[in-house]
Amino acid sequence: MTEPRRISLDAMGGDEGPAVVVPGAALALERHPELEFLLVGDQARIEPHLEAHAGLTARSRIVHTNIAIEMQDKPSQAVRRGRGSSMWLALDAVRNGEAEVAVSAGNTGALMAMAKLVLRTMPGIERPAIAGQWPTVGHNSIVLDLGANIGADARQLADYAVMGAAMARALFGIERPRVGLLNIGVEEIKGIEEVRQAHAWLKENDLPIDYRGFVEGDQIGQGVVDVVVVEGYAGNIALKTAEGTARQMASYVRDALTSSMAAKLGAVLAAGGLRKLKERMDPRRLNGGPFLGLNGIVIKSHGGTDAFGFASAIGVGYDMAEADLLTRLAADLAALHGKLSENKPPDAKQA
Amino acid sequence: MTEPRRISLDAMGGDEGPAVVVPGAALALERHPELEFLLVGDQARIEPHLEAHAGLTARSRIVHTNIAIEMQDKPSQAVRRGRGSSMWLALDAVRNGEAEVAVSAGNTGALMAMAKLVLRTMPGIERPAIAGQWPTVGHNSIVLDLGANIGADARQLADYAVMGAAMARALFGIERPRVGLLNIGVEEIKGIEEVRQAHAWLKENDLPIDYRGFVEGDQIGQGVVDVVVVEGYAGNIALKTAEGTARQMASYVRDALTSSMAAKLGAVLAAGGLRKLKERMDPRRLNGGPFLGLNGIVIKSHGGTDAFGFASAIGVGYDMAEADLLTRLAADLAALHGKLSENKPPDAKQA
Repeated sequence: MTEPRRISLDAMGGDEGPAVVVPGAALALERHPELEFLLVGDQARIEPHLEAHAGLTARSRIVHTNIAIEMQDKPSQAVRRGRGSSMWLALDAVRNGEAEVAVSAGNTGALMAMAKLVLRTMPGIERPAIAGQWPTVGHNSIVLDLGANIGADARQLADYAVMGAAMARALFGIERPRVGLLNIGVEEIKGIEEVRQAHAWLKENDLPIDYRGFVEGDQIGQGVVDVVVVEGYAGNIALKTAEGTARQMASYVRDALTSSMAAKLGAVLAAGGLRKLKERMDPRRLNGGPFLGLNGIVIKSHGGTDAFGFASAIGVGYDMAEADLLTRLAADLAALHGKLSENKPPDAKQA
Repeated sequence: MTEPRRISLDAMGGDEGPAVVVPGAALALERHPELEFLLVGDQARIEPHLEAHAGLTARSRIVHTNIAIEMQDKPSQAVRRGRGSSMWLALDAVRNGEAEVAVSAGNTGALMAMAKLVLRTMPGIERPAIAGQWPTVGHNSIVLDLGANIGADARQLADYAVMGAAMARALFGIERPRVGLLNIGVEEIKGIEEVRQAHAWLKENDLPIDYRGFVEGDQIGQGVVDVVVVEGYAGNIALKTAEGTARQMASYVRDALTSSMAAKLGAVLAAGGLRKLKERMDPRRLNGGPFLGLNGIVIKSHGGTDAFGFASAIGVGYDMAEADLLTRLAADLAALHGKLSENKPPDAKQA
């Protein structure tokens, strides 16, 4: 019997709460039978959903609370009033060692604020980043920061490189992930000062990554690197723009395949291929964005996902725990910070 | 007989030079018979391409020069050594009133640097922006800045709103275009300071735009506004990311429709619809990004486009000249700057 691996779930988070979280956990348990769950939330609302899942019931414990963070709560309100909420207790279970991972589909800002308060950031990390998987023509890539922080200095970008590499190692099993810095291709300007400074650091220092230099927005989907590093404002805009473009293309394809009787018949014949296309474009497969830089593994699920998508988010947390991500990441960050403090940037030397 | 409308073309710009520029001009002339052209470049290289186009030959004049800016030239080099080049002379024709519009498929940085030097920026505009058309599920939208400038203060963002609106008016005939500011949806943070300040200004002041507030990346392709305003670093990343995602989706669709004999047969039946899909996704239709904020109309064409795409870029310039964009834009910018100087931002009041 393998050792159990325990994950705490904010059962009240997301648009549907336990109606998605409980069947999502059941699906994840089918994939990873060594999982156990803390289901944190309103017992009376969780239990009915457990009835259909005897296997999950046997490997779960309900942690009851009446308090839930609402999707529209502001982070500051959530932190003030949210002690004892399902989100808080799910995080607290990671802090006190009862669980290795917390997963929530609740309000992103509230989850980030609480996670920082409950778990604290790793040494030398001021603000965690949100990472996500990005589908490419090859295997997936990791992109961070997707919007936890607006702006990033060179040091934060270097942190993101090491944190993203740790995630790629955990999820894809690549020992020295290829890392690129997202930039724009204007000659002589070549991006913002912070990005250029981070580029110099990542190039000069011997880090556990295969640093590939600058990448542009159209290269993310080509999978030219395993990890794409960008400050959160541009990263969030890139993510949302890609999501919007993918939906737009999907609607064009639907229009094309319903534009005539012949096209409709063609779509029937091509149904097998089109089903594969739909699977490939299914955002639920890639649901689950870890907060990186905390003393604990926290995964943010999309608020509007279904059980299949929630199970993917649990899967991300599982892979990160399985790879013992935090131990390795703490060592890598300490090594990076050691190198950066020996190896001051040119402007700091002049100062 | 309608009045002729004259456009100067940098015949040596782009990957193919006159082999694309000349047939592109011929195509544009078919669409707009009142056009006339100055073909600026190496006469010996231009003339052979004119042989097939008697109509174009009759409405063109070659302005000969041996000097051409190379795609890899740095903007500073181009400006130093590029006086008398085809790019320079095409711009100079706009300055001295010989042409109303200049179109070049050459090096973006060089074209921008030269355009600023030759044409100068409009009063109160420090740096021009690059705008582009973005396909949406409805009609196209305008997005700017696509990367001319890294970072933008609140005043520049307000300028972009007015400049983008002028372009939407010229291209789409919308008198009060809907304008949105690109932002990210994190509660309580709500984007960078400059974006919030620009938001306040655009909301408070009576401008010739229908200001709709913040939009997120996934809303660009939905066509929720006619003009999307963003600083150039994030704007360039959004554009490139959308281009990359569209290509990625297209390759997925190809895979799906060649995955089996049945799928291939289906694709044959659906050929009509798929052809329409291909047309809809054809980036050549939307080629042509104006530099806005100059005392003259300058259109940057993609360097790698073909005659069809180059004709689109000429078409953008034609529409802007036809709408007398510069006169209206100069008045709108003067009105905006007048309002902003009466109506200081909160921090300027305190200062």
